[in-house]
Amino acid sequence: MPDPVQTVHQALDSFRIETPSWGYSDTGTRFGKFHQPAAAIDLDDKLADAAHVHRLTGCCPTVAAHVLWDFAPGTDPAVVASKAAALGIGIGSINPNLFQDQIYKLGSVGSPFENARDQALAHIIDCIKLGQVTGSRAVSLWFADGTNYPGQDSIRARKQRFEAALKEAHSHLSADQVMLVEYKPFEPAFYQTDLADWGMSFLTAKKAGPQAKVLVDTGHHYNSQNIEQIVAWLLDEEMLGGFHFNDRRYADDDLTLGSIDPYQIFRIFHEIHGFARERGAYPEIEYMIDQSHNLKPKIEAMLQTVCTAQELYAKAALVDHEALSAAQRKGNIVDAEICLKKAYNTDVTAMLGDWRVGRGLAADPLQAHRASGYTEKAAAERAKRRQDLGIATEHSYA
Amino acid sequence: MPDPVQTVHQALDSFRIETPSWGYSDTGTRFGKFHQPAAAIDLDDKLADAAHVHRLTGCCPTVAAHVLWDFAPGTDPAVVASKAAALGIGIGSINPNLFQDQIYKLGSVGSPFENARDQALAHIIDCIKLGQVTGSRAVSLWFADGTNYPGQDSIRARKQRFEAALKEAHSHLSADQVMLVEYKPFEPAFYQTDLADWGMSFLTAKKAGPQAKVLVDTGHHYNSQNIEQIVAWLLDEEMLGGFHFNDRRYADDDLTLGSIDPYQIFRIFHEIHGFARERGAYPEIEYMIDQSHNLKPKIEAMLQTVCTAQELYAKAALVDHEALSAAQRKGNIVDAEICLKKAYNTDVTAMLGDWRVGRGLAADPLQAHRASGYTEKAAAERAKRRQDLGIATEHSYA
Amino acid sequence: MPDPVQTVHQALDSFRIETPSWGYSDTGTRFGKFHQPAAAIDLDDKLADAAHVHRLTGCCPTVAAHVLWDFAPGTDPAVVASKAAALGIGIGSINPNLFQDQIYKLGSVGSPFENARDQALAHIIDCIKLGQVTGSRAVSLWFADGTNYPGQDSIRARKQRFEAALKEAHSHLSADQVMLVEYKPFEPAFYQTDLADWGMSFLTAKKAGPQAKVLVDTGHHYNSQNIEQIVAWLLDEEMLGGFHFNDRRYADDDLTLGSIDPYQIFRIFHEIHGFARERGAYPEIEYMIDQSHNLKPKIEAMLQTVCTAQELYAKAALVDHEALSAAQRKGNIVDAEICLKKAYNTDVTAMLGDWRVGRGLAADPLQAHRASGYTEKAAAERAKRRQDLGIATEHSYA
Amino acid sequence: MPDPVQTVHQALDSFRIETPSWGYSDTGTRFGKFHQPAAAIDLDDKLADAAHVHRLTGCCPTVAAHVLWDFAPGTDPAVVASKAAALGIGIGSINPNLFQDQIYKLGSVGSPFENARDQALAHIIDCIKLGQVTGSRAVSLWFADGTNYPGQDSIRARKQRFEAALKEAHSHLSADQVMLVEYKPFEPAFYQTDLADWGMSFLTAKKAGPQAKVLVDTGHHYNSQNIEQIVAWLLDEEMLGGFHFNDRRYADDDLTLGSIDPYQIFRIFHEIHGFARERGAYPEIEYMIDQSHNLKPKIEAMLQTVCTAQELYAKAALVDHEALSAAQRKGNIVDAEICLKKAYNTDVTAMLGDWRVGRGLAADPLQAHRASGYTEKAAAERAKRRQDLGIATEHSYA
Repeated sequence: MPDPVQTVHQALDSFRIETPSWGYSDTGTRFGKFHQPAAAIDLDDKLADAAHVHRLTGCCPTVAAHVLWDFAPGTDPAVVASKAAALGIGIGSINPNLFQDQIYKLGSVGSPFENARDQALAHIIDCIKLGQVTGSRAVSLWFADGTNYPGQDSIRARKQRFEAALKEAHSHLSADQVMLVEYKPFEPAFYQTDLADWGMSFLTAKKAGPQAKVLVDTGHHYNSQNIEQIVAWLLDEEMLGGFHFNDRRYADDDLTLGSIDPYQIFRIFHEIHGFARERGAYPEIEYMIDQSHNLKPKIEAMLQTVCTAQELYAKAALVDHEALSAAQRKGNIVDAEICLKKAYNTDVTAMLGDWRVGRGLAADPLQAHRASGYTEKAAAERAKRRQDLGIATEHSYA
Repeated sequence: MPDPVQTVHQALDSFRIETPSWGYSDTGTRFGKFHQPAAAIDLDDKLADAAHVHRLTGCCPTVAAHVLWDFAPGTDPAVVASKAAALGIGIGSINPNLFQDQIYKLGSVGSPFENARDQALAHIIDCIKLGQVTGSRAVSLWFADGTNYPGQDSIRARKQRFEAALKEAHSHLSADQVMLVEYKPFEPAFYQTDLADWGMSFLTAKKAGPQAKVLVDTGHHYNSQNIEQIVAWLLDEEMLGGFHFNDRRYADDDLTLGSIDPYQIFRIFHEIHGFARERGAYPEIEYMIDQSHNLKPKIEAMLQTVCTAQELYAKAALVDHEALSAAQRKGNIVDAEICLKKAYNTDVTAMLGDWRVGRGLAADPLQAHRASGYTEKAAAERAKRRQDLGIATEHSYA
Repeated sequence: MPDPVQTVHQALDSFRIETPSWGYSDTGTRFGKFHQPAAAIDLDDKLADAAHVHRLTGCCPTVAAHVLWDFAPGTDPAVVASKAAALGIGIGSINPNLFQDQIYKLGSVGSPFENARDQALAHIIDCIKLGQVTGSRAVSLWFADGTNYPGQDSIRARKQRFEAALKEAHSHLSADQVMLVEYKPFEPAFYQTDLADWGMSFLTAKKAGPQAKVLVDTGHHYNSQNIEQIVAWLLDEEMLGGFHFNDRRYADDDLTLGSIDPYQIFRIFHEIHGFARERGAYPEIEYMIDQSHNLKPKIEAMLQTVCTAQELYAKAALVDHEALSAAQRKGNIVDAEICLKKAYNTDVTAMLGDWRVGRGLAADPLQAHRASGYTEKAAAERAKRRQDLGIATEHSYA
Repeated sequence: MPDPVQTVHQALDSFRIETPSWGYSDTGTRFGKFHQPAAAIDLDDKLADAAHVHRLTGCCPTVAAHVLWDFAPGTDPAVVASKAAALGIGIGSINPNLFQDQIYKLGSVGSPFENARDQALAHIIDCIKLGQVTGSRAVSLWFADGTNYPGQDSIRARKQRFEAALKEAHSHLSADQVMLVEYKPFEPAFYQTDLADWGMSFLTAKKAGPQAKVLVDTGHHYNSQNIEQIVAWLLDEEMLGGFHFNDRRYADDDLTLGSIDPYQIFRIFHEIHGFARERGAYPEIEYMIDQSHNLKPKIEAMLQTVCTAQELYAKAALVDHEALSAAQRKGNIVDAEICLKKAYNTDVTAMLGDWRVGRGLAADPLQAHRASGYTEKAAAERAKRRQDLGIATEHSYA
């Protein structure tokens, strides 16, 4: 077994995680939003916040963009990419918005209405092109499509509409782009969601083309579903494209990673380390955060998440695979489990701190952020700007 | 066994169901709202829609009010009650809003902040008084209170804050008012909800005082929880205050009643009929609808729900309780089950139609509504008014 | 819309459902079995019971066999097939037993131990050959394989062992045999089940070969998972091999079909009728019952299930597909839903009775069974035989 | 903040956990049992195993007894207690068996049959008396009672039968005995369980009398239910009687504690430490293990569980309650959460080892056990004895 500090540091060296632009702005539930003065108002704010997080952590070099929310009509994506570069970060995955427009009431590419399907497909293709301009690798597709009532639409017709649309979209990808296909059991559709589980994403991606892979959002599973098993299967099929990280207790709660069930995230990382060991290299996986920081301060929530991801990724790197395999071959359940538990129970706080200090970072990014005064400054400036722009912060459920 | 037609008609004679004002206006999910031109804009619209539904069904004499959304500051509730009366309906349960104001970020009566708790309690007391003016029987309390993260607050401190607040509120009830205490496992709180299940509502109501009862929202349960058992227990404890009816597949989906699992609703009604048979009288239960008509036309969804409630209530009235009891005493599971199935499988469509025609109503309220042109007229007028008022219909998740 | 009676009768004409041999014998939970005197002791009893059910219903011409429980070592399968034929029925799907032998402690074809894998594969191949002798079409594979603890075994290694074994087994199929691959989320494995969902069965079957299809057990899903959607996808992929019918509330409860959520079963049948309409023919699907009649009298439970399956299959045949498609195309959710609800709410009891009488059967198979004295006779004879054979009926959980 | 080592050692000083006699013998699922040669055959074996575990851990001074399995008819409980005392342990909670006898097919105290209810009540009273002889504090009641099908029995009648029975049983308690009332959502009952959740246990215990408390089995909850909240409420109501510890992913999986979700167990202990801090003393809680060691070696599984319980209890003791309360009062969610996470992430392995060594125990009980040769010796002797006694190890599901 190699030196744990070295193991942890090597693991951290190669670990990058993308923060989402929407994680810096105000979000909420259907019952309303609680506003934070320092929340990002526009794309410039989001880029600034993402760059700040990258400066503090050293492992968040890209920011995911949500096209509708981030690229106002007429925005030149090349200019945005330059702005980001000037701040020391890049534009990461491009996320089309296929649910907010009124035309998507009955779905986007799965809608029974041709005009909705056409608009959705055109928007996806636009996003693919936009990603080519910004130098993004991934176009990340989440569909809210589905139905609310039995009989509302033909499940098979919708399936076929999806297959046709994604095949067409795939043909627009450049050679270095990937299309990530996300699944989700429910919300906002409540009877049936067109891409409801990993199997549906898998089949749809396979039919779309070789650059389409499955995206695993840790919050998009049925209760008690074994996510690490899905990850292991996708790895084995070379169909794992990336993650949207968050935690949950009930539904798609979008809480910060590891806040509810940290051991599960550890086990997911363990599958990846194990796969890489066997294959001799890590697969190309997009690690992305997708959370709603409804109550926690946005940047604090992001830093907490990034640090937790590093911590659990590092712990998982400490599993002794030789001992584990030996125990598994003998059917020794207790010893096999102890291999995982020993790594998981290791306190890696100091190792992470050392790694950061060695890279010129503060040992504790959260404390460094608090000491920086960034939030207070942003709050003052953004609150005033929000007022100047007359941005309403009202929201009523009904 | 008495004549089934008579049994069904007698059951319908005593069955009243309250429609919610918010079911007539635009609602959605956190990802946005799909707007309908005919959706109600203000309280006058809601009263008109509710009166229309009552005219068509003959069994919806009251409309539930959501105070914040329905009573603009300065509104005289007595005037509202008069308006409603002029339309042939009454103001039903009063629903405080304890989640929308920014002050409720960490809770209302459960908040760690005294000013939030004070505002919430004052609002509840205002609602109690408002109910006295409008002649409403029930003040219906749903709390979004809870926490999103382990450690966020003391669970026991929050419990005690609830007990204190509801006891104080109860002291303001007049003799003919009831306080209904609703529970919900999650959403918008994602780690812990202060009143998460029937047991928590039960204990809190008991401590509040004798006029506090439990409100059962059919969508507010854990997956696979047996709702009719909870109803049976609350009946036996004389603590069942009322229902919020809707249907669900995953979470609090707020779909129309019986659209997903109609047999479950039948079984709930069966518990009530059985209880009434034994006690010789029906308990005083508030039957209320609480749904989000996000995709279906609002009034059609409401009519469908009312008719489904009548249908399942009528079917449940057809259970042969003598035969059922005899089978139960003998431990004859198959025969006991058949008693339920036989009643459930009876097609009561014609009996319901006859009952309606006998009361001067159309046999099919939905068709009568469509023939009335009500929605087209409302759509034209309200679309224009919405435009004149400059009401924005934009919503962005992030 | 054609005549409903004719539609129902045509639907029933082509509907066959297979009863399971184990549904006639005593089963229980881990906490014990409650014994019934009339429960089948051996294969002869099971064949007699299955033939009795077929005589009463006219739609259960085959009985599924569980090899370990039904074919004692040395049994000549051809003799069994002859016995069955003499009783007027045939041997249906062949079910290997891959979980009861002590060697399967850590799995069968997924075990880390080669001797367990070898024994399992050999047993499957034996079952394939046995099916050829008995003239069975389907070999139905359910695997209890999985792990109880994180780390216990390599998830990917187990996946690969499954792929290898089923590919090998598939090569032994004759041209008219199919291999059905069942999935189940948990129990008896509690951390991870090797074939946990439809996607895992689908991929494994695809790799096994063209005669491998997916088997859907209605009780083997996560809470709130949409089974009819899975059925629709499998139909569209031409990968639906058959069903194990039962009902559930919590886990794999193995209750009688439609006893908890009849509308769900109706919707599953609706997908099949809709698919057949579009393709012009019904796909070849094995409809099989897989239930545990722990408390209900075995034969009564079976008859109830068969009749409920016919009832819901018939109701689903009544859906007006033209009206449904028209509503779907217009996005008219309410009218589309009403197409389903109208068919579901039709009381088909009399139509079923007529169909039976027209085929020389009693209108009500359950009453005919009770009148026949079959159970009393079986109870007397089997109780004595059980005593003579010294069959213990003790069971202790710990 | 006091010295962590001292805090941990003090916490461990007062922490006792009871092992269950049935955890030492062979258990399984409904699909069968996998037998271990070293599994306990009779009560003497179980006492020996429990004493061995206590010698190794120093914190398991009592063993729970399952009356039917442990006390053969004619056994003098005083003799058993003496035997246990001679081995250095005591008889802990007494567990009646109210589900195995054929008379309990439709329930025990909830059965529609008077003879079943009478037998059940008499058995409970016998257990109370037996506990008085053995010097046990707790009589621990788990009821398998419930129904499998809608209509099978009257839910309210069953509720009332429970109330009457437990009130009667309570009157037989001596002053120093407690009656623990356990709940469970399902299994073996699949439609409705009479005591399905904490609220039902709470009400039933309240009606039974002041010495009746609620027993929380960590595996007996709905998916995603917040167990620590239930614990907090029961503590606040002074109704928490004890725990049955185990872990789960899907249902009542009875896996070893902390094997699936260790952070949840930490949070449960945190509620207890917090309550004790406020009240100045720890409440009297029975910490008991209730697991099925179906695959893991029995004694290893028990040692792992005990050590994990100590570890998580110790970690939870490290929470800085001053800092936590301060953060909660300010609504600082991130800092409050960090208080929990910091304690949870502390590696307490060495502190536990030191505590053990300081008490003359091995630092690692599992390694000490393996080095002792206990299992090999037991396996040899018990395998032979099992053979001599002609104990069958066969089990067939159907």
